[in-house]
Amino acid sequence: MSGIAKTPQPPYYAVIFSNQRTEGDNGYGKMADKMVELASQQQGFLGVESARDEGLGITVSYWDSLDAIKVWKVNSEHKIAQDKGISKWYKNFSLRVCKVERDKYFEM
Amino acid sequence: MSGIAKTPQPPYYAVIFSNQRTEGDNGYGKMADKMVELASQQQGFLGVESARDEGLGITVSYWDSLDAIKVWKVNSEHKIAQDKGISKWYKNFSLRVCKVERDKYFEM
Repeated sequence: MSGIAKTPQPPYYAVIFSNQRTEGDNGYGKMADKMVELASQQQGFLGVESARDEGLGITVSYWDSLDAIKVWKVNSEHKIAQDKGISKWYKNFSLRVCKVERDKYFEM
Repeated sequence: MSGIAKTPQPPYYAVIFSNQRTEGDNGYGKMADKMVELASQQQGFLGVESARDEGLGITVSYWDSLDAIKVWKVNSEHKIAQDKGISKWYKNFSLRVCKVERDKYFEM
């Protein structure tokens, strides 16, 4: 799960999900794992990168089209809504949908 | 420094920098702080978000144009080269330049 996503040649799409958590787990870890599993089964999913420290969590998922993101959005919102109120987990969050125009990968 | 960036209405640009660190600090913390300070003084800088855990670090910087990113790239590469070989700090990293097409911010 952790590591740098091996994405194809651009262009492709990224969803940057930045968030600040509430205190305590409240089932968050389980939900987060499930979401990644679910996302990776979606058509058009290219990979995911995730990091969290005490200040902030950032999850970037990569997709081959805006349509794939749209399908995932409907699915994930539905799941989140089913599982637990989103306000239980997050103090605040932002979602940014981006077109990746250029990329570079370096291995030392 | 940690927190969700308050960016303007899209479109704007994002640079997603994902990386895996080598062991030990080796002056990394100081350099990273300096880079953020330097970036935030650049024309066209809109904000930065950063998270790191044991698996991965993700830093997303936001810019008002591709030109601003280009200027920062030259500056930051120069600084990094001056300060210390990049292979001292990173096992590997990726850089992705993206156009942010849509965003949403939620505060609970």
